[in-house]
Amino acid sequence: MKFTEKTITSRVVYTGRIITVKEDTAELINGKEVYREVVDHPGGVTIIPVDSSGDVITVRQFRYPFMQETLEVPAGKLEYGEDPYECAIRELSEETGVCAGRLINLGCIYTSPGFSREILHIFLALDLTYGCAHPDENELLNVERIPLSRMVEMVMNDEIRDAKTVVAVLKAARYLKNF
Amino acid sequence: MKFTEKTITSRVVYTGRIITVKEDTAELINGKEVYREVVDHPGGVTIIPVDSSGDVITVRQFRYPFMQETLEVPAGKLEYGEDPYECAIRELSEETGVCAGRLINLGCIYTSPGFSREILHIFLALDLTYGCAHPDENELLNVERIPLSRMVEMVMNDEIRDAKTVVAVLKAARYLKNF
Repeated sequence: MKFTEKTITSRVVYTGRIITVKEDTAELINGKEVYREVVDHPGGVTIIPVDSSGDVITVRQFRYPFMQETLEVPAGKLEYGEDPYECAIRELSEETGVCAGRLINLGCIYTSPGFSREILHIFLALDLTYGCAHPDENELLNVERIPLSRMVEMVMNDEIRDAKTVVAVLKAARYLKNF
Repeated sequence: MKFTEKTITSRVVYTGRIITVKEDTAELINGKEVYREVVDHPGGVTIIPVDSSGDVITVRQFRYPFMQETLEVPAGKLEYGEDPYECAIRELSEETGVCAGRLINLGCIYTSPGFSREILHIFLALDLTYGCAHPDENELLNVERIPLSRMVEMVMNDEIRDAKTVVAVLKAARYLKNF
């Protein structure tokens, strides 16, 4: 059976600097009306840079919602109307100083499709050259190189929990094995 | 360098049925004050049930934030204080009618650690037996069996975008190859 939902009412209930929250009502195909809470988010990019020795350039940063440091791959929010490839090149350079000779599209993820419209574009960055990082003044992060094989182990051992990093690591490992 | 942030102020700006939004200010280790938007969410479980022939029991459902059907593995929100294992057993049975003889912990993901406190516990369900599904009245979904190897292909081809499903499929494929 094909399911769909039709918006009946939609009301913005919160507008922040990053997210907007809407309370909608929608009609199901069985005629029932349901309530939907939706978070609007600009979306972003995730880049897994793998150098010629098989090391991943990672960033360790503090994540306020979890009050802990997390090990992640570089990422950033899309600016309005920005092309994901351009954004990936920009964010990678800003956070790590790395310039990618080649970007391979590893697909997208919906981080939390039950309530959030956030979509992340994931890229594998290869043929790396090194310049200077220039993160935003208040974007504090430690850049670190870790072998991709070790990252896969850390993902499987539950030591890496950031969803975009888990996906980027496992997709990149599979992609690079095949090519 | 070890980074941390200290909450200075915290204010609830939205309380919905599923999420709560807070606007906080925090102090960085460089003394600067930053603004943080945080979404509180109860968290949940994700279960990838793989039967003895290597098929995954999937659920296809409409996701309102993206106005499209997505192919996912069973999942559900944690009730307050609920044990993730109990929740996984309950949600799997409700959505698909499947009972798991064995649940293997595949770790957790933070779906969007930049702004959301949502954490998902992922389980591999094995030794399956079949009963009757009993989803919530307004939880419309199609249960479908798909070979795990085909799910991996769909993940790599960007045909599956739900983050928890991508992680569950790639972790399960790796886990089952090793055991």
